[in-house]
Amino acid sequence: MEFMGKYAIGLDFGTLSARALLLNIESGEETASAVFEYPHGVMEHHPVTGEKLPAGWALQDPADYMECMEKAIRKVMETAKCDPAEVLGIGVDVTSSTVLPVRKDGMPLCSLEEFAANPHAYVKLWKHHGAETEAKELEKLAKERGESWLSLYGGKVSSEWMIPKILETLRHAPEVYQAADRYLEVMDWIVWQLTGQESRSACGAGYKAFYHHEAGYPSEQFFEAADPGLEDITETKLAADTALIRGIGENAGYLTENMAEKLGLLPQIPVGTAIIDAHAAVIGSGVSKPGTMMIIAGTSSCHMLLSDSEKGIPGVAGVVKDGILPGFFGYEAGQCCVGDHFAWFVKNCVPAAYEEEAAAQGITVHQLLVRKLEGYRAGQSGLLALDWFNGVRSPLMDFDLNGMILGLNLNTKPEEIYLALIEATAYGTRMIIEAFEQAGVLVESVVMGGGIPMKNEMLVQVYADICKKEIRLAASPNASARGAAILGAAAAAMQNDALAAQTGYGNASEAAAGLGAVSDTVYRPDPDQSAVYDRLYAEYVTLQEYFGKGANDVMKRLNGIKKGLASPDKE
Amino acid sequence: MEFMGKYAIGLDFGTLSARALLLNIESGEETASAVFEYPHGVMEHHPVTGEKLPAGWALQDPADYMECMEKAIRKVMETAKCDPAEVLGIGVDVTSSTVLPVRKDGMPLCSLEEFAANPHAYVKLWKHHGAETEAKELEKLAKERGESWLSLYGGKVSSEWMIPKILETLRHAPEVYQAADRYLEVMDWIVWQLTGQESRSACGAGYKAFYHHEAGYPSEQFFEAADPGLEDITETKLAADTALIRGIGENAGYLTENMAEKLGLLPQIPVGTAIIDAHAAVIGSGVSKPGTMMIIAGTSSCHMLLSDSEKGIPGVAGVVKDGILPGFFGYEAGQCCVGDHFAWFVKNCVPAAYEEEAAAQGITVHQLLVRKLEGYRAGQSGLLALDWFNGVRSPLMDFDLNGMILGLNLNTKPEEIYLALIEATAYGTRMIIEAFEQAGVLVESVVMGGGIPMKNEMLVQVYADICKKEIRLAASPNASARGAAILGAAAAAMQNDALAAQTGYGNASEAAAGLGAVSDTVYRPDPDQSAVYDRLYAEYVTLQEYFGKGANDVMKRLNGIKKGLASPDKE
Repeated sequence: MEFMGKYAIGLDFGTLSARALLLNIESGEETASAVFEYPHGVMEHHPVTGEKLPAGWALQDPADYMECMEKAIRKVMETAKCDPAEVLGIGVDVTSSTVLPVRKDGMPLCSLEEFAANPHAYVKLWKHHGAETEAKELEKLAKERGESWLSLYGGKVSSEWMIPKILETLRHAPEVYQAADRYLEVMDWIVWQLTGQESRSACGAGYKAFYHHEAGYPSEQFFEAADPGLEDITETKLAADTALIRGIGENAGYLTENMAEKLGLLPQIPVGTAIIDAHAAVIGSGVSKPGTMMIIAGTSSCHMLLSDSEKGIPGVAGVVKDGILPGFFGYEAGQCCVGDHFAWFVKNCVPAAYEEEAAAQGITVHQLLVRKLEGYRAGQSGLLALDWFNGVRSPLMDFDLNGMILGLNLNTKPEEIYLALIEATAYGTRMIIEAFEQAGVLVESVVMGGGIPMKNEMLVQVYADICKKEIRLAASPNASARGAAILGAAAAAMQNDALAAQTGYGNASEAAAGLGAVSDTVYRPDPDQSAVYDRLYAEYVTLQEYFGKGANDVMKRLNGIKKGLASPDKE
Repeated sequence: MEFMGKYAIGLDFGTLSARALLLNIESGEETASAVFEYPHGVMEHHPVTGEKLPAGWALQDPADYMECMEKAIRKVMETAKCDPAEVLGIGVDVTSSTVLPVRKDGMPLCSLEEFAANPHAYVKLWKHHGAETEAKELEKLAKERGESWLSLYGGKVSSEWMIPKILETLRHAPEVYQAADRYLEVMDWIVWQLTGQESRSACGAGYKAFYHHEAGYPSEQFFEAADPGLEDITETKLAADTALIRGIGENAGYLTENMAEKLGLLPQIPVGTAIIDAHAAVIGSGVSKPGTMMIIAGTSSCHMLLSDSEKGIPGVAGVVKDGILPGFFGYEAGQCCVGDHFAWFVKNCVPAAYEEEAAAQGITVHQLLVRKLEGYRAGQSGLLALDWFNGVRSPLMDFDLNGMILGLNLNTKPEEIYLALIEATAYGTRMIIEAFEQAGVLVESVVMGGGIPMKNEMLVQVYADICKKEIRLAASPNASARGAAILGAAAAAMQNDALAAQTGYGNASEAAAGLGAVSDTVYRPDPDQSAVYDRLYAEYVTLQEYFGKGANDVMKRLNGIKKGLASPDKE
């Protein structure tokens, strides 16, 4: 069968909704885009009883993905009046680590009557935090055993990752664990649904399940020591046939007859290996070689970087070969609390007078605060904050820490606190950049994407001044979906020479360079601002050492007192 | 002349207004009270050009005191239909250190055409902060010279005190300094106006001008070393005839014919030695012997305590014999920022939704926040704050420090921050109490007065839980004016036996015990709350050591950067 197409479809599964993007491979134009919210959203209540689940729980229903995907693809095809024969490839990106247990045939356990009332049978979303205990336990064990993979994850295990989430199920719902033939990232499950073939993305396995391109998964002995029930996890639940692991840019299979009919597409379209949503944005923003750090700043931030070499860097949350683009080691770091931070502030700490002023000017409170900060100089407020309102991912990987604001006085204005919070996230980013540089992984410039920088130019300039790097913005508001579409095009290109010729690209890196979209505007560091920020950053570093590395564990003790009050039986 | 009276008048000169209180000495009833705002209020602009004065400046016009005093006395006499012959004595209290330069005849320099345009010729209000440089200089010099008086002021010199304010004038307006025959506390100037006789209150001289009952003022050598121009300050400007110094409870003179006519009173009424307003409240609240600490909590807080012995206690801002009541050493400590702190928070950090909720319930935002905190337990929010939003008086005596809030997370609510600020001021108070106790000066219980505890019962309970002391409240909303009236009664009692018999009291301490008003309600520490607060207080102490005593001078460096930006010529 021959394809006439010049389009690729990118499917982007976010936290609350799924998007389909129709990318014109010749012009680079985003011809059509459609988004549908998941009917069940993020489930924080028991799926049957409706009772509130424990704090930190966040589930999803996998049927929502299928429903929204179908609607979104049909919508873009219809909007663009696109002939299905013109669609040349499909790419997929999903949040991660977002995991689910399924039967051998790919059927999610939660879709079976038997398990519909068991919360552990549902998708555990990336931000499901029910596995704190298990994460700490696994980290401790890995340290004790000197597991070599641990250094590639910054020496830490996050409760957001796959293995702690599986161990949580084994401990609290062993019947679900036993019944699961497979545990998968949702990204791999969706590709399985599209292609009818099971496979695993090196991106998900590498960043979220301790898989290494040479060493494979952690050893049977490690898993057995963690819990005897985990002994055969690699062979069974993770289906560790290395032939099933696909690098980014590889073709994962072809659209099935059945699925093609459902989606209104032609069968046999190549489907690319799935990728994590943040990583897809790297590709969508045209970052295709070492030296440029991509920062996706939304509710939280994710920092990604390509390199020719593999190094363990403190606080870096993953290093994966072919994890972002083929031929490179993809590094990932992150900050827990960026947009969430500003949203908390605007909701809780901005007085009525400001809300009225914003309304009178017809702008948002965020915009008003930014307007009031026009002409502000670094250091002018005398404030310094720690951006730990949701714990710390990189570099400390410690979720038992909290935020701080210092330097307050009776003249402190709300916009000054807002700026201090922005600056704090930028100091956190500089810390991550410096960790890379100290390990010899170069960061020459930065591309920022995600909702926050798009809406707040002042923030971008503050980041440039504090990090002392030139910053460009991702040009597409749908950078992840665009990246997924580019991987769809690459899947086609990898399929055969004829298709490669049609796309004009030989592989994913070439496709990313050609089809990624970055704006022309460059935010350059202001040397005067940077000079002051150097001094403020030094203070930030001192305080993060003091409060974050054991000199004064006051935050942990306060959290301990708080927890002790909540459950008086525990200390 | 014989008096028939059973009334005393208390005159209370506050920051913004003057009050007259007519106290029935037999019944203890506050028969009438009247308050008038100063026409010029607190002057932050140049009296002639209207230009904004430098930040921190705060002046007053002494004519305002006379005008408001006359109106207020006439008003209470009229309201109570009081026969002037029934008025037996007058007492005066004033803010301090609130100082002015005058001619030999008592005429304020600012009232002379020659000096009307010179800001330094006006009253420098207690919170005038233009003498920071001079205060630091004097402190440094006193330390270098090992001046013995310094330890009685906690080893610190505040820019709010008299001598720095005079030195500021000498440096910046030597013509005013030269023209001044005298520099006085306003309290002494008002007594001079009433009696026609110059005198000085031991309270003002002791707490604000380094006067000691045995050693007198600092030596000529000290003043000369500070500035040759100050060489003769003691003999000239301060009129250091020890016979002019009067202890609290002593009679300072008699109402002149002229003033009696002006005020609608009879001449020759005894006028008591004036007292600082906060100290007057001690008397007005019936604290008349050692062991009970009086805390006046308003915009800032003042802590006062009587003792039989004189000790230098770190951070105590003054120890003065007969400075509060005769026969005792009166100790004073303070916190810079209490009500100001809460007012800043409510103005700047409470969202519109809360303001609407308060309006809907018909209560203030403060009351709403308190209501939302009902049932809150110590440690529940995980927050800890440093109450340094306006610097620190006791114990650090350092105004180059700022506030801090720690333990913030995305679930932190406004009322929790509000509570953390209240708790921080209570930790600060506990620190002051412990400094007294460590020096062997007993604190058995506490009486609180001022606007804040009257309006916020929850705060009083938090103070009881944190300080682990029983607390009662001052019963009069005009505790300072009541204290002044009691000193008026005491002045009569000291005059002669006949008058003493009429008042029923032999001296000021007896009058305070009999006429001071304290409520019956006792706020007792809750042992469970106190146990948690002990742990939180330990964290507060650690942080105050870290940020306040040189381990990490980040606050000072941030302030330095801020100042450097404001005036780029200085570092």
